[in-house]
Amino acid sequence: MNQSPIQDYYPDEIAVCYGCGRHNPDGLQIQTYWDGTEGICRFTPRPYHAAFPGYVYGGLIASLIDCHSMGTAIAAAHQAAGREPALDSGITFVTANLNVSYLKPTPMGVELLLRSKVRELGEKKAIVTTSVYADGMECVRGEVVAVRIPSRKLDL
Amino acid sequence: MNQSPIQDYYPDEIAVCYGCGRHNPDGLQIQTYWDGTEGICRFTPRPYHAAFPGYVYGGLIASLIDCHSMGTAIAAAHQAAGREPALDSGITFVTANLNVSYLKPTPMGVELLLRSKVRELGEKKAIVTTSVYADGMECVRGEVVAVRIPSRKLDL
Repeated sequence: MNQSPIQDYYPDEIAVCYGCGRHNPDGLQIQTYWDGTEGICRFTPRPYHAAFPGYVYGGLIASLIDCHSMGTAIAAAHQAAGREPALDSGITFVTANLNVSYLKPTPMGVELLLRSKVRELGEKKAIVTTSVYADGMECVRGEVVAVRIPSRKLDL
Repeated sequence: MNQSPIQDYYPDEIAVCYGCGRHNPDGLQIQTYWDGTEGICRFTPRPYHAAFPGYVYGGLIASLIDCHSMGTAIAAAHQAAGREPALDSGITFVTANLNVSYLKPTPMGVELLLRSKVRELGEKKAIVTTSVYADGMECVRGEVVAVRIPSRKLDL
């Protein structure tokens, strides 16, 4: 497993994402570790991230799936190209579709584990599937369609 | 249009949702106004809700669609039952599936308008579709499957 999260290699000028930007001090700072076959993310919701008393807010889980799926797609695309992640690698994806199924309520008070796999990886898009576990129990499942774009398109 | 958002009628003990709970001071305080045929929500993202510089974070938009769809389903279910919203009405929905398509980047710095319609409303579930507009331009589209549950199930 790579020692650094893939988000550490997002270019400085665009690393402001509320979900996963390391330069957004108000954000969630979601981190994706790529182990060669899966993207792994661990996140402990804050007490105020509730939906109902004792259960995690679904919109937060959707956000975790979103950013972590992008991170997983970016890591997998580097591997497929035989390249190490780097600030200037120019491999960037954005979300085209986010589909989240809430299988059962996700309990608060435990660290969540997200395991993501790249089901499809092409020149222009990737499809990433994710399972979210709390205490070993799969609570949520997600599928994200990620579209690859030139990173210069984001310098706006 | 009802003068109060539907979230004002969620029972006190469960109104802690990070997205739309009026008793969550750290939350987004999303509000749904029902006009008889559509659910209307207006929300201005904070400066830190960015995805990339100048554009709104997709996870925030997914959260808006999620809570606003629930609010729309709850309002429509009251209307279908010929009842006024009330703290003890016992009509509650939770999200089973959230599907969000990002049609184009959503610009920061403007109020977002969400317009939601109930495509299907049954005894046990509702399907709500939403369009998200920025400056009159449709940027995101969502479809949510909401499942109706007894509100006592949430007193955990």
